[in-house]
Amino acid sequence: MSPSPASPARVTAVETHDIRFPTSRELDGSDAMNPDPDYSAAYVVLRTDAEDGHEGHGFTFTIGRGNEVQVAAIEALRGHVVGLSVDELCADPGTLNRALVGDSQLRWLGPEKGVMHMAIGAVLNAVWDLAAKRAHKPLWRLLADADPEWLVRQIDFRYITDALTPGEALSLLSRGRQGADERRARLLERGYPAYTTSAGWLGYDDAKLSRLAARAVADGFRQIKLKVGADLADDIRRCRVARGVVGPGIRLAIDANQRWDVEEAIRWTKALAEFDPYWIEEPTSPDDVLGHAAIRRAVAPVRVATGEHAHNRIVFKQLLQAGAIDVLQLDAARVGGVNENLAILLLAAKFGVPVCPHAGGVGLCELVQHLSMFDYVAVSGTTDDRVIEYVDHLHEHFLDPVVIREGHYAAPTRPGFSAAMRPESIARYTFPGGTFWAADLDDTLHGNPENKDDKLHENKKGHAA
Amino acid sequence: MSPSPASPARVTAVETHDIRFPTSRELDGSDAMNPDPDYSAAYVVLRTDAEDGHEGHGFTFTIGRGNEVQVAAIEALRGHVVGLSVDELCADPGTLNRALVGDSQLRWLGPEKGVMHMAIGAVLNAVWDLAAKRAHKPLWRLLADADPEWLVRQIDFRYITDALTPGEALSLLSRGRQGADERRARLLERGYPAYTTSAGWLGYDDAKLSRLAARAVADGFRQIKLKVGADLADDIRRCRVARGVVGPGIRLAIDANQRWDVEEAIRWTKALAEFDPYWIEEPTSPDDVLGHAAIRRAVAPVRVATGEHAHNRIVFKQLLQAGAIDVLQLDAARVGGVNENLAILLLAAKFGVPVCPHAGGVGLCELVQHLSMFDYVAVSGTTDDRVIEYVDHLHEHFLDPVVIREGHYAAPTRPGFSAAMRPESIARYTFPGGTFWAADLDDTLHGNPENKDDKLHENKKGHAA
Repeated sequence: MSPSPASPARVTAVETHDIRFPTSRELDGSDAMNPDPDYSAAYVVLRTDAEDGHEGHGFTFTIGRGNEVQVAAIEALRGHVVGLSVDELCADPGTLNRALVGDSQLRWLGPEKGVMHMAIGAVLNAVWDLAAKRAHKPLWRLLADADPEWLVRQIDFRYITDALTPGEALSLLSRGRQGADERRARLLERGYPAYTTSAGWLGYDDAKLSRLAARAVADGFRQIKLKVGADLADDIRRCRVARGVVGPGIRLAIDANQRWDVEEAIRWTKALAEFDPYWIEEPTSPDDVLGHAAIRRAVAPVRVATGEHAHNRIVFKQLLQAGAIDVLQLDAARVGGVNENLAILLLAAKFGVPVCPHAGGVGLCELVQHLSMFDYVAVSGTTDDRVIEYVDHLHEHFLDPVVIREGHYAAPTRPGFSAAMRPESIARYTFPGGTFWAADLDDTLHGNPENKDDKLHENKKGHAA
Repeated sequence: MSPSPASPARVTAVETHDIRFPTSRELDGSDAMNPDPDYSAAYVVLRTDAEDGHEGHGFTFTIGRGNEVQVAAIEALRGHVVGLSVDELCADPGTLNRALVGDSQLRWLGPEKGVMHMAIGAVLNAVWDLAAKRAHKPLWRLLADADPEWLVRQIDFRYITDALTPGEALSLLSRGRQGADERRARLLERGYPAYTTSAGWLGYDDAKLSRLAARAVADGFRQIKLKVGADLADDIRRCRVARGVVGPGIRLAIDANQRWDVEEAIRWTKALAEFDPYWIEEPTSPDDVLGHAAIRRAVAPVRVATGEHAHNRIVFKQLLQAGAIDVLQLDAARVGGVNENLAILLLAAKFGVPVCPHAGGVGLCELVQHLSMFDYVAVSGTTDDRVIEYVDHLHEHFLDPVVIREGHYAAPTRPGFSAAMRPESIARYTFPGGTFWAADLDDTLHGNPENKDDKLHENKKGHAA
């Protein structure tokens, strides 16, 4: 940054919020590993002194306890961001990406994984939100319209050049320009295919599963997903119920949320094969590239899908190199933000593996639709065998919530990354001082004084099995 | 925990300290990725109301910025620990291990990697320190004397049973009992072989390198290590200097600290092959199992070593399954503590790969010696091709510092895990309020008022290249 006589606009603040929704009180979101999540966001707002008044919003999704650690990690990045020129930042988020990932002291806390890396993702996603607002475009469109050489410069190729070089990335992006205008028009008309997980949470009884599965099909979804992995007899019964309701023409995905070891994953998936599952998702540890490869060899033709917990481009590179996955499930807020997801989309394109993003949680649908839409318009050029996860949760808290029509995500048209939450939601669900949590604690204190310690304890420690 | 009429001793507090040493002002510790570390510890003390007055001490090592995030992560675990029965906790740390790793909400922040997982390691290591003190044994001895079936119960086998089953672990540990008494006596007499990194930091000039390398040999070390990876011409010159000084009979390891992509690692290592490097350490991303395997195939007979940033047993499992490493470099404070390192030691034994731990930093030598000594006495049964890293840094801050004699670590005899720092060091180097940092900031303020903002900024943001 060089000083300018025009006194260019600067980033003036990196504001954070610890936002938690009390979702564990319902059984929405329950799966074999996460019985009682409180869907949460470590939320960041970049403020500037630009006259346009735009802010950049971003967040990391968590499921409750530890959200404060994630907020602390975002705050540790503040010194890299405050004071940057807004023009320079938005013209080249890749430079900040390299500065954040390359901070030699913070790097020790990863590198490029876990809490610190997700914090980098939250900040960079906020930068892209700001850049898209300033460009008066939804993010998918900003990316799809961008010069391929500029996009390549947004990517950190460190550790992936053995699988994807900058030259190969440029070729893929240049090829992606062919027919992009037609695809953009088609996207605006039809939207992007979605599948729904809303029917299949573990906590739902068969009647609810059955009702929601039927409604999903009636609503136009061509794929639904069931959580599995807690009890095999239950899973067999639930798959039978779901397959019976949706019939043979609807894809039925199953998701074990990392529940199994390798051998168990193979046995369990084979035991569910009679219900023709389209994919088995997260059969084992997200770190286990070789384990996924072994499972894939054993359970074919059932496909193997993973990625929502794959912590960076290097893990995705290896999943592809090892032939470990049929379906790549990137997440908008797990890795280092848009820049790293550009690398992951291009790796998938290079290896010819379809991307079906993870979504749900808080705002993940809002974010990730932009990445898939960019992929369709300007990278893979197709939606064949590609679907974005959809979960009908918490969209009401967003200023530009996703719109689902006939089982498709409608393409966002408002400028930005659809990341901004309603101010009143932030005020209500800030933990522990927001109006919801303050009243909740107050109820506990006055309703039943003996419970006070239990209540505080519950917020600190697992009440999970 | 059930209430007891005898009112058993409980854990009463999980106290944390953000401790930072200003090591960046020297060039000790400089390498190709970490030019200016401030060696730090996110430090934890478990206090109890037991009459013996013992405390459990543990820590995560970091290199400066972000140490406060690591402290916040340890604090997020407090609710799992405070109130536990000290007897039950020390009789079975494995139960707490499973509770911490299995906390479904905190798990989302990893799983089992990065800031949250290192925090679990700090807490569990503190538990083992407490258990060893209460048993009146140094930790290596507590482990070596333990019943093999009990040790197996300390291990979380989730995600590793495709490589190591509990039955196999029990066989390895039972076999390890044969001759353990003789080995223990030999260990107490001779110590455990060390190698030194103190000569080879990138920031040292050739004269200093030369002088320190000669002194290392004179001091009895049979292996030294040089940092490489910043500039090939420099590396060739420095390797020539070092090899010239130590002669052909001393092992010369080289360490790139993750500097390279796969192809670059192969080219660079081959360019240094004429100096007969014993191993190339961390040639690329610690996440890149397949990359390490490709490098190993290409650079043999130079060995490939990694592990100080391998984030859990699942990564080590794959490094071994893929034939990616010749030398396994576990770290005492990177993974989930002693319990996870038991799994890693047994995986190494199963695959017949020698363990040469990473050490240095703050207190890593103090901790990791216990693991290698246990491995020698009761698992691998040998020190052939096994050495513990030694760096001559900051030992003066520990109450039971390592003792090096004739290039060997002397076996600790004081009860515990050698983890406790001197109270006066904690008071002086607590950041930012300890006497050192307070005075340092004060100097800056009064010495040169204009520098105040720069100084604060420096502590928040990288001044690295």
